[in-house]
Amino acid sequence: MNIIDIIAKKRDGYQLNKSEINYFINNYVSGEVKDYQASALLMAIYLNGMSRQETVDLTRAMMYSGEVIDLSNIKGVKVDKHSTGGVGDKTSIVLGPIVASAGAKLAMISGRGLGHTGGTLDKLESIPGMNVSLTDKQFKKQVKQINIAVMSQTANINPADKKMYALRDVTATVGVIPLIASSIMSKKLASGSNTILLDVKIGSGAFMKNLTDAKKLTNTLVDIGNFFKRDTRAIITDMRQPLGYAVGNILEIKEAIDTLKGNGPDDFTELCLQASAIILNQAKLAKSFKDGYSFAKKQLTSGAAFKKFKTWIKAQGGNTTYLDNPQKFKKAKHIILLKSNIDGYIEKIDALQIGEASMHLGAGRLTKDDSIDYAAGIILKTKVGFKIKKGGPLCEIHTNKNNYQPILKDVKKAFVITKKPVKVPSVVLEYIK
Amino acid sequence: MNIIDIIAKKRDGYQLNKSEINYFINNYVSGEVKDYQASALLMAIYLNGMSRQETVDLTRAMMYSGEVIDLSNIKGVKVDKHSTGGVGDKTSIVLGPIVASAGAKLAMISGRGLGHTGGTLDKLESIPGMNVSLTDKQFKKQVKQINIAVMSQTANINPADKKMYALRDVTATVGVIPLIASSIMSKKLASGSNTILLDVKIGSGAFMKNLTDAKKLTNTLVDIGNFFKRDTRAIITDMRQPLGYAVGNILEIKEAIDTLKGNGPDDFTELCLQASAIILNQAKLAKSFKDGYSFAKKQLTSGAAFKKFKTWIKAQGGNTTYLDNPQKFKKAKHIILLKSNIDGYIEKIDALQIGEASMHLGAGRLTKDDSIDYAAGIILKTKVGFKIKKGGPLCEIHTNKNNYQPILKDVKKAFVITKKPVKVPSVVLEYIK
Repeated sequence: MNIIDIIAKKRDGYQLNKSEINYFINNYVSGEVKDYQASALLMAIYLNGMSRQETVDLTRAMMYSGEVIDLSNIKGVKVDKHSTGGVGDKTSIVLGPIVASAGAKLAMISGRGLGHTGGTLDKLESIPGMNVSLTDKQFKKQVKQINIAVMSQTANINPADKKMYALRDVTATVGVIPLIASSIMSKKLASGSNTILLDVKIGSGAFMKNLTDAKKLTNTLVDIGNFFKRDTRAIITDMRQPLGYAVGNILEIKEAIDTLKGNGPDDFTELCLQASAIILNQAKLAKSFKDGYSFAKKQLTSGAAFKKFKTWIKAQGGNTTYLDNPQKFKKAKHIILLKSNIDGYIEKIDALQIGEASMHLGAGRLTKDDSIDYAAGIILKTKVGFKIKKGGPLCEIHTNKNNYQPILKDVKKAFVITKKPVKVPSVVLEYIK
Repeated sequence: MNIIDIIAKKRDGYQLNKSEINYFINNYVSGEVKDYQASALLMAIYLNGMSRQETVDLTRAMMYSGEVIDLSNIKGVKVDKHSTGGVGDKTSIVLGPIVASAGAKLAMISGRGLGHTGGTLDKLESIPGMNVSLTDKQFKKQVKQINIAVMSQTANINPADKKMYALRDVTATVGVIPLIASSIMSKKLASGSNTILLDVKIGSGAFMKNLTDAKKLTNTLVDIGNFFKRDTRAIITDMRQPLGYAVGNILEIKEAIDTLKGNGPDDFTELCLQASAIILNQAKLAKSFKDGYSFAKKQLTSGAAFKKFKTWIKAQGGNTTYLDNPQKFKKAKHIILLKSNIDGYIEKIDALQIGEASMHLGAGRLTKDDSIDYAAGIILKTKVGFKIKKGGPLCEIHTNKNNYQPILKDVKKAFVITKKPVKVPSVVLEYIK
């Protein structure tokens, strides 16, 4: 077997078998197969596709390219949740305490933000003292004791995905279902949970731009998860605007705290409750979605979820006085209010543009090695469907950079205002199981 | 402009414009565009094709990626010839002296052999003393003085092709018309001749396996040449067996000498005469193909071509006593006669298998850095269409390696023998102008 023949086979439209896919992944991780060979194969896969069997085989090969976490010593249903990447998406930080306080076991392996999407780890690390570099042992122990822990993805987990993702990013081979699906599912399967809830985003800045494509991807993801005997379900959610009002690390943590205290934005609270409802049903802690929804709501309103949040953050070294008094969080030097030039209704708040602007304000990374300004970001003052008057507030810009002027223009462009009334969209568009 | 957008455009089936193609080539040569990006683009080109305009633009960009030789100071028609690569193909070594002795100017920039095909330079260097590392100045001066010179392709000429060819070889992106055509034509156009004759091979081991594909490639090549205002013509020739009897460097030089003395194999002599006829017509030294053919034949039979051959080799430092007394050439330690196991007719002598076996005997290079044993190779004792008896000679194996036994088996497999009589094939299948 050699890689040139494997590339040629896929190039010519044939299906690769399991041993050819394993050969590619193992030798790519070891360095025998070069980046330029992998990228040629990835382009051939992009253009000629992959069958269900090939996608399953690729997922398995990637999953076993590194360590697979074993959570079998932890009693109860181990749940997991994955979002395909949104702007203002702090869902895990609220949903985690809800389901953990209800009895589910959530062992979260998270990533950092890159480009226009933020990362759960960065958001959590904006709480002073918070440590996400846990050992495997610490991680499992904490899940056993308090039902929830978060750690950063170590180099040992799924090295194939790390190498391939970096390569796809610079070779125009990102946006194709078998490669997206195998990347997501190989990571989730390697993290050892019994159930998986996927949150597939649609809209600007998301992998999938429309509902048809998003459904195709979602069906593939759910199919692979079930093939590997995980109870896998998915929601398709709307990203025609950022989730909630806050974008940026400290700003999002504060919004998460508000939400855990029952004072969160409607769209974001609704997403957290629906996602928690599904997870509680998957964890057999609720008989139905409806029961799960009530259970989740009870955890929020009773304060149980917020209490669990504090326990969690404390367990990982975070200073919980910030959670009780969010005004203690650092504020940016410049806070600028952007106003509307016209009367109308908000039709769209381009999530990609807001996410990129937020990154340029200091909240995100353009390259992996950039540092983050936790205080930077954007707070929306309006949402899609809202009426706005000339001079009315669009959003607040938070930054420590002095040359923020050009960024304001980009932020303003993200707001699409129309004369006709616009319907307030539902955040969850589909529930697929 | 950035390379990721260019890759994505071709991936999505759009045509690249001239500035995008120039951007790719210039930045690939400079190293800004990485191998893994180039290979993704090459695979997208392989699968989505290129228009005539794109192929012309790619050819031009590659040609101007380095030095373009200027032969304008040399009087007369500067002719050039290119073969897509055959086994036992020593045509240039015979055709060169024929057309040069007739008054055409042949400034040959040649390559070395790699894999199953030999290289003209390696064959010429098997003549003791022969020097192919000429400076530009020496090269042009020699063409002016004696009508013929050969030099190795320097790093300055077409660096884009060198990089791309090496990459295509290891990423399964070799066999597609726009990439083959731009590679061949950018090299030929950079070498500065007025006319180009292309010899496109069909058969095992050639780029093109059948006449339909070969015609498509040939038409593209001729079209590009004419676009750049070179009188470009082509012949399509049969490679269902090696050309002539000899495969291997010294063995082929000896066969070239025999041919120049009028005692060459029928198929090889015929190819040399037809190709020379076309070149003499292109050089306006003959009114028609027919006139050119007679002229070429006269140069062979009168001894003028052989005389020119000696003048040429002497001018480049070669020891011409070897040409007068070919028995002086070194012989291999082992010479083994392979015999037929059955009666029948020769249907095929697989050129790829013979070429690869010859390489393994020491006559060729598996990788660029391998050294060559000039004495090694294979001499056929029969040809397609010939009758053979059980125990009759198939070929002679020449090698200095002691462990040649496994190679004999492979050589034997190359001979396909059938019970029914087989027609002797024509060597030249088509003449396209």
